[in-house]
Amino acid sequence: MDFFVVLSLAFYLKKPLNENIGMKKEDLIECQIRIAPYIHRTPVLTSRLLDKMAGADLFFKCENFQRMGAYKMRGATNAILQLTEEQRDKGVVTHSSGNFAQALSLAAKSLGVKAYIVMPSSAPQVKKNAVEEYGGNIIICEPTLKARRAAAKKIEDEVGATFIHPSNDLQVITGQGTACIELLGEQPGLDFVVAPVGGGGLIAGTGLAAHYFGKDCKVIGAEPFEVDDAYRSLKSGKIELNKTTNTIADGLKTQLGDKNFPLILKYVDSIIRVTEDEIINAMQLVWERMKIIIEPSSAVAFAAVLREKKKFKGKKVGIIISGGNVDLKNLPF
Amino acid sequence: MDFFVVLSLAFYLKKPLNENIGMKKEDLIECQIRIAPYIHRTPVLTSRLLDKMAGADLFFKCENFQRMGAYKMRGATNAILQLTEEQRDKGVVTHSSGNFAQALSLAAKSLGVKAYIVMPSSAPQVKKNAVEEYGGNIIICEPTLKARRAAAKKIEDEVGATFIHPSNDLQVITGQGTACIELLGEQPGLDFVVAPVGGGGLIAGTGLAAHYFGKDCKVIGAEPFEVDDAYRSLKSGKIELNKTTNTIADGLKTQLGDKNFPLILKYVDSIIRVTEDEIINAMQLVWERMKIIIEPSSAVAFAAVLREKKKFKGKKVGIIISGGNVDLKNLPF
Repeated sequence: MDFFVVLSLAFYLKKPLNENIGMKKEDLIECQIRIAPYIHRTPVLTSRLLDKMAGADLFFKCENFQRMGAYKMRGATNAILQLTEEQRDKGVVTHSSGNFAQALSLAAKSLGVKAYIVMPSSAPQVKKNAVEEYGGNIIICEPTLKARRAAAKKIEDEVGATFIHPSNDLQVITGQGTACIELLGEQPGLDFVVAPVGGGGLIAGTGLAAHYFGKDCKVIGAEPFEVDDAYRSLKSGKIELNKTTNTIADGLKTQLGDKNFPLILKYVDSIIRVTEDEIINAMQLVWERMKIIIEPSSAVAFAAVLREKKKFKGKKVGIIISGGNVDLKNLPF
Repeated sequence: MDFFVVLSLAFYLKKPLNENIGMKKEDLIECQIRIAPYIHRTPVLTSRLLDKMAGADLFFKCENFQRMGAYKMRGATNAILQLTEEQRDKGVVTHSSGNFAQALSLAAKSLGVKAYIVMPSSAPQVKKNAVEEYGGNIIICEPTLKARRAAAKKIEDEVGATFIHPSNDLQVITGQGTACIELLGEQPGLDFVVAPVGGGGLIAGTGLAAHYFGKDCKVIGAEPFEVDDAYRSLKSGKIELNKTTNTIADGLKTQLGDKNFPLILKYVDSIIRVTEDEIINAMQLVWERMKIIIEPSSAVAFAAVLREKKKFKGKKVGIIISGGNVDLKNLPF
């Protein structure tokens, strides 16, 4: 669907977003319009050389060019925009040491809202600096899940800030899905959309978007073998955990949640796992051939397409390039 | 001037390109139309963050997204297209170990012409592989200028191939200028265009283009202190040489020539020199903030803008990002 059709349709729709799995097409359209003034409409790039390599027509939705360098800006913006005036006055809080910490900080700053970011003491200084640069207020805690949650809860209680989960939040999920809506707006005939799976927010939103805006468009998740919790969860039908997190794709170490997992079960066709070498190879190919900087988590999606060439042969394949935030002083090449 | 105006104007113009400094606007327009089917129209990108840093409005003409990863594709394509049928049948020859070797190989391949590339035995294997990948026929010679010239001359004599110089050739110069024509087509009000200076082909073509298509648009060259031959040449009025070539900007080590120097004297306002640290810093800023891969030679132009902030304060500044071919295994960060 064209973006302008989306825009015009929206004037007829005034319903609030459903807080359950029965999310409607209108909810996604409204979200798209709501966040549009605060995000970049990122380009969809192609490469004849990579097409040839993959044996398919690839369309890279470049969220590495998104504000703060990742799709997370979409979900963070939508979540804050859905708060009441009173809630906004008291600020938002999350725990994250990755892109969502930066996204919530920048989205909050853009909207004149205070953001409290709980980060583990083990977080690299470069990530702390980025959050501060975007105006987030950092609260340092012990590097355990328990300590993170406690620190966030304390902020909720003390200043009345609203907790926003990086991936297990329907407003966040819907926001992340808008990247796929835009992609399908430009390429309505996609047979597949492939996205990386970490906490599950992006893949759930992508699933929803493809369901409503695609034409028989299958959504495939991509995951490192080293953190294949989503692959196993889809097999077993319940949320599985990772025992190790030994992957270069640092954005994909988190686990699924009770809000995004039902959507993943319903709208995601399958999950392809890739090795660490395949991730690094895919990342290098995109850097060298497309001249764009993508982070390892994004390379996971392209690696999946290269791994299962038969599945994608001759098809039109959308790939969500989730972000481009890398530490240049610590590259895998 | 808009690209479509250029296109429509072209139907009224049928003159051959002038082989002297009195090159006409029509020559540039014809060149633009001639090469358009064989090159990418690259995007002009902006960054609010880098604008803020520079205190100016910056417009990056991204030739790193050009075919084979550099603007050299433009000049190489134009030079081959200007040959007679008979000349094309016998092929083209050049000596280069850099981007022009790849550009001539790919341009020749696209046009069904044979390309002979003389490379010094010292050229890195990665560069030889790239030339072969694009279909060029490599002739290895001793790593001296004399040996290079002799090897190229031998090919000219033996197979009748036409020699095409990487930068000191009016067809090549005119081709390189088309990047600036496109840039000014999108941003007609530019106060400055800044481009790196190596062999002088790009800066001469850019000077010509700004002269005919800009409105009081000044062209500034950018050069490392370590290889400031063009800076000194502009001061002395004659072609000066480099005594050392100790710079990370490996595309800028070559010297000016008798075809491009008169154009540079006439159309280039001044040359700004930058340190190696400034080049690396500028390169890192573009990689981290814009998420695009640019080579050190391209970073030289942006570094010049950051170095002389007063000069560019509040101005609209075009920057030619000349290319994005870097060895990821050998980065300066």
